[in-house]
Amino acid sequence: MTDVPEAAVPDAFHVFDTTLRDGAQREGINLTVADKLTIARHLDDYGVGFIEGGWPGANPRDTEFFQRARAEIDFQHAQLVAFGATRKAGVRVEDDPQVAALLESGAPVITLVAKSHVRHVELALRTTPEENLAMVRDTVAHLRAHGRRVFLDCEHFFDGYALDPTYAKEVVRTASDAGADVVVLCDTNGGMLPAQVTAVVRTVLADTDARLGIHAQDDTGCAVANTLAAVDAGATHVQCTANGYGERVGNSNLFPVVAALELKYGRQVLPAGKLAETTRISHAVAEVVNLTPSTHQPYVGVSAFAHKAGLHASAIKVDPDLYQHMDPALVGNTMRMLVSDMAGRASIELKGKELGIDLGGDRELVGRVVERVKERELAGYTYEAADASFELLLRAEVDGKPLRYFTVESWRAIVEDRPDGTHANEATVKLWAKGERIVATAEGNGPVNALDRALRVALERIYPQLASMELVDYKVRILEGALGTGSITRVLVSTSDGRGEWSTVGVAENVIAASWQALDDAYAYGLLRAGVTPQA
Amino acid sequence: MTDVPEAAVPDAFHVFDTTLRDGAQREGINLTVADKLTIARHLDDYGVGFIEGGWPGANPRDTEFFQRARAEIDFQHAQLVAFGATRKAGVRVEDDPQVAALLESGAPVITLVAKSHVRHVELALRTTPEENLAMVRDTVAHLRAHGRRVFLDCEHFFDGYALDPTYAKEVVRTASDAGADVVVLCDTNGGMLPAQVTAVVRTVLADTDARLGIHAQDDTGCAVANTLAAVDAGATHVQCTANGYGERVGNSNLFPVVAALELKYGRQVLPAGKLAETTRISHAVAEVVNLTPSTHQPYVGVSAFAHKAGLHASAIKVDPDLYQHMDPALVGNTMRMLVSDMAGRASIELKGKELGIDLGGDRELVGRVVERVKERELAGYTYEAADASFELLLRAEVDGKPLRYFTVESWRAIVEDRPDGTHANEATVKLWAKGERIVATAEGNGPVNALDRALRVALERIYPQLASMELVDYKVRILEGALGTGSITRVLVSTSDGRGEWSTVGVAENVIAASWQALDDAYAYGLLRAGVTPQA
Repeated sequence: MTDVPEAAVPDAFHVFDTTLRDGAQREGINLTVADKLTIARHLDDYGVGFIEGGWPGANPRDTEFFQRARAEIDFQHAQLVAFGATRKAGVRVEDDPQVAALLESGAPVITLVAKSHVRHVELALRTTPEENLAMVRDTVAHLRAHGRRVFLDCEHFFDGYALDPTYAKEVVRTASDAGADVVVLCDTNGGMLPAQVTAVVRTVLADTDARLGIHAQDDTGCAVANTLAAVDAGATHVQCTANGYGERVGNSNLFPVVAALELKYGRQVLPAGKLAETTRISHAVAEVVNLTPSTHQPYVGVSAFAHKAGLHASAIKVDPDLYQHMDPALVGNTMRMLVSDMAGRASIELKGKELGIDLGGDRELVGRVVERVKERELAGYTYEAADASFELLLRAEVDGKPLRYFTVESWRAIVEDRPDGTHANEATVKLWAKGERIVATAEGNGPVNALDRALRVALERIYPQLASMELVDYKVRILEGALGTGSITRVLVSTSDGRGEWSTVGVAENVIAASWQALDDAYAYGLLRAGVTPQA
Repeated sequence: MTDVPEAAVPDAFHVFDTTLRDGAQREGINLTVADKLTIARHLDDYGVGFIEGGWPGANPRDTEFFQRARAEIDFQHAQLVAFGATRKAGVRVEDDPQVAALLESGAPVITLVAKSHVRHVELALRTTPEENLAMVRDTVAHLRAHGRRVFLDCEHFFDGYALDPTYAKEVVRTASDAGADVVVLCDTNGGMLPAQVTAVVRTVLADTDARLGIHAQDDTGCAVANTLAAVDAGATHVQCTANGYGERVGNSNLFPVVAALELKYGRQVLPAGKLAETTRISHAVAEVVNLTPSTHQPYVGVSAFAHKAGLHASAIKVDPDLYQHMDPALVGNTMRMLVSDMAGRASIELKGKELGIDLGGDRELVGRVVERVKERELAGYTYEAADASFELLLRAEVDGKPLRYFTVESWRAIVEDRPDGTHANEATVKLWAKGERIVATAEGNGPVNALDRALRVALERIYPQLASMELVDYKVRILEGALGTGSITRVLVSTSDGRGEWSTVGVAENVIAASWQALDDAYAYGLLRAGVTPQA
């Protein structure tokens, strides 16, 4: 059995993470043992008190996880928790192999799931309400007798309470009397709203001696609020998952719950200094489960502190706290200004400063940039998603001329569908660079790829820096949906040089021409980044 | 000024949508006027009471939107709302061009944004608290005198209330006394939690005569709960956006708010029958703004009622209500077991029946169609959004061979950027139809348009029915975002023959080839629809 970590946070309030067990039920998540170990390290680093690792015995992957976690991870803050069920109906607890597997996992803490809804007892367990109580009593007592700490999850508690509050509370009392440290009220189907949760938790707390916890699902979009509503009523144990991963809509999201408890309730629930790791941990877990981090997740999304409206930008300059509910640095995030057609002078100035270009003194110049941005965005450009194109536009206005490394005379792309069903994609570019006229042709797996290659073939001898650059994302948007193929096309391209990424935009009446513009900007910006001096 | 629609829902409770104004502030959303008109039609169809369309006068796109909405949309349920600010400090309301633009928009309802936070009055408006009150009073009275209904948004209300509750309430009273129908308390920075919202709304309601509304932002992950918390305290006007789009993390999400009000509160806030359109409307709006619909969005996500197999499966068969908080059909969604595939036998049979093709008797055939759909969807095709391509696939399996009106030998598209900056787009197709080999070349405003024209030039003599068909929508999605221009491209095309529309899909390694496939299907299906007999 692993020891309790020395740096464990006080026991008065439990931050209990179930990403590895309940979070893994999310559609699209499929964790290997190595993934689970990595996530456990991140969660321990973040400072949660408990990490529920899975159901040992129920599947081999979880059994292996507990073995390896004990051997490989030196937990600094968290205690490892094994999840399992109360003993089977009509079986002695000592004879239940599933219960034995929980002890064998070596986890110091065990969460038992139990029924507290009479219809579930009858239809899913196919036993009597009395036997269900005995199953709770026996299993808790057995695990306690073997030195384990026990939390009991009352599955479907809120629905069961609505149907038969007396029985639901009897399950809570039975578990608590048998030695469960915390009884967790689960909104398994996720249908609750905060006011209901507060009322039920308050009543159950008054009517039993149990310490209560909350496990909320997000089916009404209220899981975070329901978790906090239970805390308001006296619950001192919150079960959450990183990024709210979980079955159906998901679980209560660990990060906004922790942030609210620390920043809004003033209750320290993580070790000191760990809240500032929130954004990093959230993104790290998303990486491991291979889901794109939600850009709009509270506190940690890249958009969570991004400001678009020109209306606000002038006052943000005076006092940023007027326009944010908290300092983003507290959760390891940053404020970001977006340029858009709503943008006024102030946001252009702020954005310029962010890019290291001081525009503060020149009202006429800022006015020109604002006009240019409005005009281009009306034509379909979007600069909030294309910082590099915006910087090129800004520098062109500052310098009075566009920044150029090469001058394109013409280009051509050909897509040919051959009788055998394969395609040939060929592109030719004709351009001038450093006084030299260059003609280059290349093939690709599509016309844009062929153009990209032709451009590199033409330029790489003159600008060897291009060799390290690579297109990493490509997005197409048709701007006028009601005009058929006569519509305007916008292309966004992300390019990487291995050290960083930048985004550029192109808009034209066809996708190839729009892609070309975005490529042109992408390489111009890449050369600027690389410190290459532009051509006159 | 447009009239109030006859079918408007009762005024006692307002569902106020601000997707087109506040929702459009979401990073990554950039709406054209055509997009805004389409979304307005969807929202009206859904049955919201009010649609805030933008800020006329502040940018040309919004001014144009109000002109075109009045001319082009026959609203069935919603009233159109123009958003604007109170008059400038030190200016007569009659002389303020921004206020004049609100009247000129012709919108029957106007939402005025006003400051209710003393520090914002001083730092952002640079005026005195007294002048701010006069600005509220004058502007509300002026608009009322011109026959407009007025709602007043108290920006930063909750933060302002925390700092100076007396002044914040004075703004509410001033607006109400001047004739504002609703005063909306805005949690502009989104830092509130439900218990706080309930307490503040209750106090303000007790201390003023105003009818109150709520506008919540999702920065704590509690926007839906905060909206409902305000309703709990007596607010009767909720401001939301479709899918929660909005600045930073987003706004209060219209769909879970409406679903909770109807299903959990038992309060009818949409016209009868409209709640069941929730999933469709949510996805339709996501399409228009070109964001992938969130798979995990409450109520409407494809995962929202998906169950992982195992533990629950047998009990779900006995009583599905034990494992879901509501019947998904109420919001137009469906329960889904993740073991069974989306393209299960039953749905293929149902779909066949819908198309007038009875597959019920032939298990082997249905199995073949299921396999074919799985294989194609794995390759990137999507048949949910391409009914016509699905019907062609189904008929090909039923007939044992593809349905063909012409056989393509090859095609070629050329895009050329000329030294003067203009583009030439030329396409050539070589095909066989009714035993004849035809070669045709055409130009277009883009390579796909050129291919479309060349195909028509080749075929219109043989199939004059093509003359009535026209591409009406064209969408491109890059399916693998991390592979640069080497990724797979999916194109969806909608075609109309003036009596109806159909959608087709193409997937290929480049956008031109994918577009060609979708065009090929589009014309084949159009000829089938027109009753033309296929060629052997």
